[in-house]
Amino acid sequence: MALIVQKYGGTSVGDVGRIRHVARRIVETREAGNDVVVVVSAMAGETDRLLTLAYEITDAPDDRELDVILATGEQVSIGLLSLAIQARGAEARSFTGTQVRILTDSAHTKARILNVDVERIRQALDEGEIAIVAGFQGVNAEDEVTTLGRGGSDLTAVALAAAVKADVCEIYTDVEGVYTADPDLVPTARKLPRITYEEMIELASLGATVLQARAVEYAKNYNVSVHVRSSFSRNPGTLVVQEDPEMEKVVVSGITHDKKEAKITITRVVDRPGIAAKLFGRVADAGVVVDMIVQNISQDGHTDISFTVPRTDFHKAMEIVRGIATEIGADQVLGDERIAKVSIVGVGMRTHSGVAAKMFAVLAAKNINIMMISTSEIKVSCVIEEKYAELAVRVLHDAFQLETQPMAG
Amino acid sequence: MALIVQKYGGTSVGDVGRIRHVARRIVETREAGNDVVVVVSAMAGETDRLLTLAYEITDAPDDRELDVILATGEQVSIGLLSLAIQARGAEARSFTGTQVRILTDSAHTKARILNVDVERIRQALDEGEIAIVAGFQGVNAEDEVTTLGRGGSDLTAVALAAAVKADVCEIYTDVEGVYTADPDLVPTARKLPRITYEEMIELASLGATVLQARAVEYAKNYNVSVHVRSSFSRNPGTLVVQEDPEMEKVVVSGITHDKKEAKITITRVVDRPGIAAKLFGRVADAGVVVDMIVQNISQDGHTDISFTVPRTDFHKAMEIVRGIATEIGADQVLGDERIAKVSIVGVGMRTHSGVAAKMFAVLAAKNINIMMISTSEIKVSCVIEEKYAELAVRVLHDAFQLETQPMAG
Repeated sequence: MALIVQKYGGTSVGDVGRIRHVARRIVETREAGNDVVVVVSAMAGETDRLLTLAYEITDAPDDRELDVILATGEQVSIGLLSLAIQARGAEARSFTGTQVRILTDSAHTKARILNVDVERIRQALDEGEIAIVAGFQGVNAEDEVTTLGRGGSDLTAVALAAAVKADVCEIYTDVEGVYTADPDLVPTARKLPRITYEEMIELASLGATVLQARAVEYAKNYNVSVHVRSSFSRNPGTLVVQEDPEMEKVVVSGITHDKKEAKITITRVVDRPGIAAKLFGRVADAGVVVDMIVQNISQDGHTDISFTVPRTDFHKAMEIVRGIATEIGADQVLGDERIAKVSIVGVGMRTHSGVAAKMFAVLAAKNINIMMISTSEIKVSCVIEEKYAELAVRVLHDAFQLETQPMAG
Repeated sequence: MALIVQKYGGTSVGDVGRIRHVARRIVETREAGNDVVVVVSAMAGETDRLLTLAYEITDAPDDRELDVILATGEQVSIGLLSLAIQARGAEARSFTGTQVRILTDSAHTKARILNVDVERIRQALDEGEIAIVAGFQGVNAEDEVTTLGRGGSDLTAVALAAAVKADVCEIYTDVEGVYTADPDLVPTARKLPRITYEEMIELASLGATVLQARAVEYAKNYNVSVHVRSSFSRNPGTLVVQEDPEMEKVVVSGITHDKKEAKITITRVVDRPGIAAKLFGRVADAGVVVDMIVQNISQDGHTDISFTVPRTDFHKAMEIVRGIATEIGADQVLGDERIAKVSIVGVGMRTHSGVAAKMFAVLAAKNINIMMISTSEIKVSCVIEEKYAELAVRVLHDAFQLETQPMAG
């Protein structure tokens, strides 16, 4: 008998039929002798419907009220899912974030979890009930409703799993697990049986949507075993685990691409202390999150600075940068929205040299020009022309032989 | 400067345009120098949408979970209305039933209010904010979400008005106030400038949908001034007030009709103590609410008993009564779904005799047969054939001269 936290996303509870299907799966887990805590998202489309209503009323909705509105999506789901479980003869009880008491700070729409009270959940489990908890939402010290940001239900699940000391946190999604690359793009992509927290954080940050990066960080910090799997099949999915020596033998675990960024370059900037701070300080003040930053070698006291921003913030960022360019006497501001970021990720890079060089060579062989490069200990990202994104993923997948299961050591 | 509670129903906040319209009205009230507390219902159709989802999952949804689901309707409304008020430059803050702390008992889907905590509302008003409160919902001592039953937002408004000692509780609806009869039916129907609590309770119980009867009882008990008026016009509506001697001069204040009941008759019942208790005990155990009961004079030790039940419970009730009829050796069980109840209401009846007799004569003159009669101190109700309902209301309206404003005494 284990204590299992299961998280079902919006697609898994998208309509009454799917809610019934999920209920059956939950009851089976319970009848197999496990204690079960379920975290559920809003029905697919519901959060967008509520956002549309709010933005029809005002362009700049107050974050506190937005949270009051958005939190209803998950509240409907927990009620409906509890009813579906009860209809199968099992006992279930729903909990909002306020009722569990998932205490957060007051950063509405992007709150951070401070503490999870598990007393009421424990009590429900002790009484033989399945606890159904609203994902994505919490409550601050003033009893105000807060939300955790997009993908926040993953975080709720992991935080609950940590708090109740669950044996595993199962994240149910509409794919079979974490793949070496997007299977729609690369037919030979392979489901990974295991992946390290670090790799999963990089993949999630780099465009893989299967799991929220903050949730993986939380899981890593509290050593929560995460199992990413499909709500539509019985196959085992991908386990997200602590790194072990065996895993370092795999140089590249996965390849992602991301078309959600745009590139801005400011040319012939005077190479003087404080210029970059001014530039990126101003951009940050406008609420624009900068991802990659590249500064070229200084020539005759001038340098070029390139960086990427979310495409949705591109025009706002361009306007700010044009203003600063005039102030600091830079030459030009160039923008490019048609870019893609292609990344390879793997803990084995730490101990294998030449991985980045091989990536550059593979792309060069296909005449794909690299505009920007960014590396960390376990990933290499290249910004390329958007039209080459799919080609790049495919040739890299081939070159690093990701279709082949690595040999057991 | 007054303290005003305003309640807006589902039609008044039925879409984004109407929410904006209501927001303007609220802000004008605030800018006129008043403190304003607003109670709001779910957007029209939302409660039914949520009920449909729940009943698609199960025929017999658990009341606790139903309340969790239904309470989201008002939670969306308070958020959207707060945003609309803020968009007009005023300050607003939303409160769920849990946040205010509208404490109820644990009778889910039909909870009774036990206490209203006004500290947070007071605090919001002191800070210059308009408090926007979710109607229809509360919280029990175990922090579980409860709802107050259909029309419960009226009760929320009146209870809040009593608790904050508001100068007036304005109930906004889609009609101009309380009429002597349904204006769609009787073109000469007149808006009543004033009506007593007792009359309003009778009218609401007898089919007038403008205000929930429980809310009026609460208002009467706590002496809350209620003003029923239209959210689509500036005209004064109807004040619901304590009776004063002046008001007794009006014999009949209003006429209602109700087609939501059905009649059941059980014939040749042995006239013996305990039979009626057994019959109605069994019906009550099945959750069927009986309205009128008429028992004829006993002949040769037998009697006929007729009573009315909601049409939605007619078949269930018939089945129960057929079972009992066999047990107690009654003759027949007769059912009739095509009935209507027509009622005249007025505090003046207490001091004027012959009112019931006049009603019977007026109906007889039109050859309308009376099947059942029920009276209270301030009302007379007759059950007639459904097809005569509109005709009966019109001829009674004429006969009691309700189109004429009564003379000031």
